[in-house]
Amino acid sequence: MNRRHLLACMGALPWAGTAPAQSTRSASLVIVGGAEDRLQDRLILRRFADYCGGAQARIRLITAASSEPERVAQSYQRVFEALGVADFAALPLHTREDAADPAVLREMAQADGLFMSGGDQARLMEVLWETPAYAALHQAFHAGGCCIGGTSAGAAVMSRHMIAQGPAVLRPSKAVTSTDIGLGLLSAAVVDQHFSERRRLARLLSTLALRPDLLGVGIDEDTALVVERGRAVEVLGQGSVTLVDTTEMQSNVDEVDTEEQIEMLGVVLHTLPAGRRYTVDDVPRRWPAQLDRALRRLIEPGPLRG
Amino acid sequence: MNRRHLLACMGALPWAGTAPAQSTRSASLVIVGGAEDRLQDRLILRRFADYCGGAQARIRLITAASSEPERVAQSYQRVFEALGVADFAALPLHTREDAADPAVLREMAQADGLFMSGGDQARLMEVLWETPAYAALHQAFHAGGCCIGGTSAGAAVMSRHMIAQGPAVLRPSKAVTSTDIGLGLLSAAVVDQHFSERRRLARLLSTLALRPDLLGVGIDEDTALVVERGRAVEVLGQGSVTLVDTTEMQSNVDEVDTEEQIEMLGVVLHTLPAGRRYTVDDVPRRWPAQLDRALRRLIEPGPLRG
Repeated sequence: MNRRHLLACMGALPWAGTAPAQSTRSASLVIVGGAEDRLQDRLILRRFADYCGGAQARIRLITAASSEPERVAQSYQRVFEALGVADFAALPLHTREDAADPAVLREMAQADGLFMSGGDQARLMEVLWETPAYAALHQAFHAGGCCIGGTSAGAAVMSRHMIAQGPAVLRPSKAVTSTDIGLGLLSAAVVDQHFSERRRLARLLSTLALRPDLLGVGIDEDTALVVERGRAVEVLGQGSVTLVDTTEMQSNVDEVDTEEQIEMLGVVLHTLPAGRRYTVDDVPRRWPAQLDRALRRLIEPGPLRG
Repeated sequence: MNRRHLLACMGALPWAGTAPAQSTRSASLVIVGGAEDRLQDRLILRRFADYCGGAQARIRLITAASSEPERVAQSYQRVFEALGVADFAALPLHTREDAADPAVLREMAQADGLFMSGGDQARLMEVLWETPAYAALHQAFHAGGCCIGGTSAGAAVMSRHMIAQGPAVLRPSKAVTSTDIGLGLLSAAVVDQHFSERRRLARLLSTLALRPDLLGVGIDEDTALVVERGRAVEVLGQGSVTLVDTTEMQSNVDEVDTEEQIEMLGVVLHTLPAGRRYTVDDVPRRWPAQLDRALRRLIEPGPLRG
């Protein structure tokens, strides 16, 4: 049973269209650290298109994070055309009113892939938060097997606890980052992007000091973390994904003032370079138990919302 | 029994002078990440002088790393004068010939503290390596209880495996750093300095990928790691010390080419902010077993050499 049949059966989205041709798509997250190649090999966006079902896929772009949505839309239009994806369009989704427009919701429900551009993650969440489009995106991912991609701001919103902004500090300290609520497609993680290029480890550690229950996920530019739900994690592109696990950390964050530095003891770090794939149920596993635990937190999707 | 009596008894340094007035000095390492305050509170250099025995201490400066030894010497002269240390001088130790000069060796044997300036750690080691001055420095520290300090290049040489140079890369990879042999006063560590300011975590990780048996020690500017041998570790100044423990790391470093990124799984990180002190035999210990293990590696001095 494919996604649209399922939705039609559920009655959740009664406008859901006809079934698409058999596709290879699988409900995955393609979380890009920004500045992905759109001119040369386009490896990451090519793989995103593949996850959505290839040339037959219906891919829709969400540019609500961007201050230049038309320019961004034209850029991605050229990319997906070059990749042979005929059915690509940017959604007219720029305001909270748009986020309740039945035509937009119908497009979201029928998409094989939704890709969120860069820009400002707070602006993107202002447009989407608790709107029908927010619910439609969750439905598409959770119930429909729609592939969700996002770059930069579109990556930041993947987690529930989202870094809204904050400077690339030298050392972990309190009150460095302001956080907000993201889409929550990742259940137990917090994503930071442009990670190595903008030297954001201390910013991510600052966030985790206050939320050590979350898994820190730092994604480099032109690099994607692909999360195949319930199954595997893969790194694509040019850089690395850094996982920061504070599960067993001891810190003095509750004792220090806002301006003081934080002591963080027992933080576990994994650097996963592009080209590596981690299938969780592989036996025998060739990695430490700590990585196994981190991967299982990544592949477990957040709850359906909206 | 103080250091000079001990040396006289051992006959190791027959020129060793008369015993100094009772001092509070203890054989410690004061390892400074560069750019320590020399104009305001001078906290780190003040504490170094205290470790050497305070105002009565005989402190000698080694400027062999520097390309401007006279300017550097004048700067430290002013600092230690301001701190009330009357018996301060720069050693005339700029060449390998100087490093065999009996007058220099006598000064080293009689010093309560030896401080190594910044500059180029390779130049410093070229002057000292396997010379009588190298032996005298080891004797002073190991047998004599002399306090050894060093900043920047003078910090890098503290470990046996020394980072000679290397760019602040974005991600860990092979062939990033060139390493050389340092003084080996730390037995199982490798020190990097200007750590947070120059964003050197990836450079340190690149070094540790090839030498995971070593403990990575990243020291920030205007920050000192004080190692009280056999006993405690303290962080002074403005920044943090980052310990990077790769004991249980799994990496693919043996499988990748020079230009490829390295997968590093299960790296353990501790950030120790200025003002914190860790006495290893404190019971109960309030920190993770992994930190305890790291601290024990730090307080264990390297072997006597020379």
